[in-house]
Order: sequence, then structure tokens, then C-alpha cells
Amino acid sequence: MTDERHDATDHDHDHLDGHPDDDRDAPEPVTVLGLGPMGTALAGAFLDAGHPTTVWNRSPAKADPLVERGARRAGTAAEAVAASQLVIVCVIDYDAVHAIADSAADALAGRTLVSLTADTPGRAREMAAWAAERRVGYLDGSIMTPTTTIGGPDAVILFSGAEALYERHAAALAALGGRRVHLGADPGRAAAYDVALLDMFWTAVSGIAHGFALAAAEGVSATDLAPFAKGLHELLPWTIDEFARNVDSGHHPDPVSSLRSITAGMEHVVHATRARGLDDGAIGAATALARRGVDAGYGADSMSRLTELLVRTAGSPVSG
Amino acid sequence: MTDERHDATDHDHDHLDGHPDDDRDAPEPVTVLGLGPMGTALAGAFLDAGHPTTVWNRSPAKADPLVERGARRAGTAAEAVAASQLVIVCVIDYDAVHAIADSAADALAGRTLVSLTADTPGRAREMAAWAAERRVGYLDGSIMTPTTTIGGPDAVILFSGAEALYERHAAALAALGGRRVHLGADPGRAAAYDVALLDMFWTAVSGIAHGFALAAAEGVSATDLAPFAKGLHELLPWTIDEFARNVDSGHHPDPVSSLRSITAGMEHVVHATRARGLDDGAIGAATALARRGVDAGYGADSMSRLTELLVRTAGSPVSG
Repeated sequence: MTDERHDATDHDHDHLDGHPDDDRDAPEPVTVLGLGPMGTALAGAFLDAGHPTTVWNRSPAKADPLVERGARRAGTAAEAVAASQLVIVCVIDYDAVHAIADSAADALAGRTLVSLTADTPGRAREMAAWAAERRVGYLDGSIMTPTTTIGGPDAVILFSGAEALYERHAAALAALGGRRVHLGADPGRAAAYDVALLDMFWTAVSGIAHGFALAAAEGVSATDLAPFAKGLHELLPWTIDEFARNVDSGHHPDPVSSLRSITAGMEHVVHATRARGLDDGAIGAATALARRGVDAGYGADSMSRLTELLVRTAGSPVSG
Repeated sequence: MTDERHDATDHDHDHLDGHPDDDRDAPEPVTVLGLGPMGTALAGAFLDAGHPTTVWNRSPAKADPLVERGARRAGTAAEAVAASQLVIVCVIDYDAVHAIADSAADALAGRTLVSLTADTPGRAREMAAWAAERRVGYLDGSIMTPTTTIGGPDAVILFSGAEALYERHAAALAALGGRRVHLGADPGRAAAYDVALLDMFWTAVSGIAHGFALAAAEGVSATDLAPFAKGLHELLPWTIDEFARNVDSGHHPDPVSSLRSITAGMEHVVHATRARGLDDGAIGAATALARRGVDAGYGADSMSRLTELLVRTAGSPVSG
């Protein structure tokens, strides 16, 4: 996390644009809609930072611990929205966001809605369009770190949407944790980073689960394998930098391991997996893609060539 | 790479068991069969360490640079084998190992054959059985680091097979590089580590290539995404330790993220991937496995539960 552009810091409250309802010295009132584990952590962080905090959840009992800590419980989403210029929604997906926002659309007009709900970039842009039609200010955000980090220095939250809106509420959003990054005006951009990063991360974690299964099937304990696995995974940040340079330049030169030799190694893994009757899911699909790259004439290139191959051979969009 | 058990060090030549042909003070003669990039690196490391080195390759011209450095070129594999007690074979796969070993079987009897050829654990065990029938000593090894590391401190090579054979040749094998680990008597064990580690590593790298493709389809450059990706991947060694504890104990408690919430996030990634018409190969397969875990009742567990699910639901072996 070394990208320092657009970083919010605690000095950003100096940039508040003096919205007429704001008192520059008092913490801004905030509303949090949705009190699952993450919504509860967000509301708790606002309370800890001294913000008057109004909360609402479909099942009201979820608010009890926050009310004990000083939050105000609203009876409806519309009533909760009416309490604050800044409204945070963090629920399971955008179907849930829509259900809540539709029920409070009149109250939301003229306020800022910040969705910290994880979903696809397309859903985030669609929500921004919904908000624009109803004169609702809209920011989209992706929370990159677990609930336990919220409010502390390790929290990483990506935002996208209008810069002026982000600046207006930067002091309040600072309560959510140490590292906030505004990525630009496209409201889908935070979700785009989110899905691309989750793609990488959960594919890797699924590979860890599968590698331990293959080892177990061969009589090798996870504890015996782990030190070697950790050593290999320490190479991944280096791989990420190499791939990023190659992908953005369009050149995929001088690999330490060529796609052809990597593919041969991957095919051994698939054979070993099938020889034990194990599902070869992710490594099977990864190997098929690598083989496709070799067959397309990229055997001597870096494996980073596969990024370009994927983009170039994309088919028709399929709605999710 | 912090596992210190069974580590070979440069003191191991004190443990040589005094094979009658050995001169404890002179570097042992060695033979290297197969002079691809890795075989050439291995032979070069033996030469650099002062070992009388005999080389053979199917196309003899590959030996020219090594002969210039002092290697002896043999006309046939059998002639090369006859020159040394210790014979290394490093070729493309075990079909190639068999073709060479069959042609030199009589010469190999009573000597030690060390295959540093990457393939499956099953092929390694099959080769060990072939060797046992012909009174050939056999060790299997997996080279975990690139050709450029061979002979230097960063080389990592795993060995398995009879401990006494490994000890007998430890001084010569030390020429290949800094970190050699003997994993036990099962000749398939080095290959088992190898395929399990490559499974994890190449699945992760394939995820990196795919994540950059998804980002590109959303207008996000690889360079912009890379710092965040590196930050996330720094969590993987921690994940490996957590999974190893869970897998070996059979307990998958108190996850920071439950399998259910991870699966929901993965499904967003798959939807975003399909929405751009991209192949959802590895992340699609990983998500299907995670969903299978949730449907099997493990939604509240750590994702490490998937290792057990994979092993328990393994089907019939499929020969590769």
C-alpha cells in the first residue's frame, strides 16, 4: 500500500467547503444504514470519533449495542436519513441498497449517500445513476480490510465519485480509519479495484487450500509444507511488479521462466491432482489458459502475456 | 524457507560413509545426462566445484560450452554412466528419463542415479521401482529455484529416497547450491512437495494475470493497481500458517472472514468478470468450490475447510 496519490489525511478537514449546515469545529452528524458486522464496525468508529450517529437496521435489535454506546436508533430508513447530511449504507449487495434507498428516496434528495457495499463496478455505476436522477450526492467505496481494522490505522478504504463530495465529508470519513484513497470521479472505480484485487487474492487463497489437499493426498502434512510455501509466496510482490510493467508497456520480455516451461510444470500438477482423484478446478482452469497462451504463440514470453490474451479474446458481456 | 530439519550443510561431507571408491579429499566424479538449460547449469556447478564431470546429451553440440570449461563429452549415455558412481539426469519428463535409463541400464547397476527431472510423485516412485529391480541406487529431487540460482547460495533443491545414498553423495550434491533438504525415504516425496508448491504458486500467478485483465477491462492500469495488490499478497504467508494449523488439527475456527462472506465476494468477482465477457476460468472454478463448501454446511468456518472437503470428496484416480 504505497500509492500516495489522492490520499486523505487528518489534515483534510481544513479543506471542508463550508456546507451551510456544517460547524467546522463539531463532528458532522452521520447516519449508518445496515448493521451487519461491517456496518456495526463503521457506526462504532463514528461514535468513537464523537460524531452524532443515527443507525437503522431492518431487524432493529441489531442496533442495541450501538444505542448503549450513544447511537440514536431510527424507526425507518427515511427517518434515519433525515438526521444527517452524510448517509452511509453497508449491506449485503446492491439489491439491498436499492430496497433501502427506494424507501428513503425523498429524504435522500440533497444529501450525500456513501455506499460501502461490496458488489460489481456495474452495480456501483447503476446506483450512481439512480442517485443522480434523484439529486442525491453519491460516493462509492470498497473496504479492503477486515471489520477489526475499522477506525484504526490499518483500515484501507477506497472511494470513487465526485471529488468535491469526497472533500466535503473527508473529516467524517477519516473516522473510519487510517488509509482512505479517492480514486477518481468514475463511481465504479473503487469497485473495479475491489473485484480485481479480490480476484487475485481469493484465487491465491484457493490455490493454498488446493495445494495443501494435494500434499495431504501424498502423505505430506500442511505443517511440513508451509515453510516452503511461505518462501515461494514471498516472490509474489516481485511478480506483481514485473507483470504490471509488462502489462502496461505491452512488452513481455526475458522471463526467468517462460510460459512454455511454466505450462509444462502446471500440467504435471494437473496430472498429479487427477492421479489422486482430486478436483482440479482452479489449477485445471489456470493450466488450460496457460496452454492457450502457448498455442497462441507466446511460449517464449512471460506469463504476463496472459493478461493481454484474456482482454483481447473477451467475448460478449454476460449480465450477472 | 525456514524449515531447518534434515538440512544439508557443507559440514555433511564429514558424514560420508566411506564408500570404497571414494577418496575423501578429492571431489567425486559425476555424470550429468541431459543438457537443457537446467542440466547445463547443474554440470557447470559441478565443474566450478572441481568435480571431474562427464556429460551427455542426445544432440551432442549442447555439450560444447561445458567441454570448453573442462567437461568430458561421452558418446553414449552408457559410456557417460560408466565414468562416475554418481549420475544426475535432468530432462523434460520421465518418459525421457526412461528412454535414457533403459539404454544404460547395465552400466547403471551398482551406481547412484539422481533424477532432478520435474514430474509427478507417481512417476518418481515408478522410476525408483525400476531402479530397485536393476540394483541401481535411486534418489529423486526437485529443483525449486531457477537455473540462475544453481551453484549459488539461493538454490533450493529437495531430495527424497534412501538416506544412506543421500549421505554418501552429500558432498558432491553440495556443489549444486546452498539449500538442500532431504525429505525422507519415500522417493515420491520431493515430487509431492514440488507439485503441491507449484499448485499454490502458479494458481496465484494466474490469478495475478487475471486480476490485471479484469482491471484493464474496467479502465484501471496495472501500475495503479499494483501497490494495492502487493499489500494484499503480503497477507498470504500469514494465511498459509493459519491454514496449515487448521488443516493439520482438523479445526477451522474463528475466521477473520467466514467462507460464506468470502464466497459472496468471490461471486461478485465472477459476475464482474462475466459482465466484461472475460474468461472466468480459475476464479470461476475457485468460486464453485467455495460455494460447494458453503452448501456442505461450512459457511461459518475458515476457508481452510476446503482442503478437507477436497480430500474427502476425491473420486477415482485418473491416470495422467
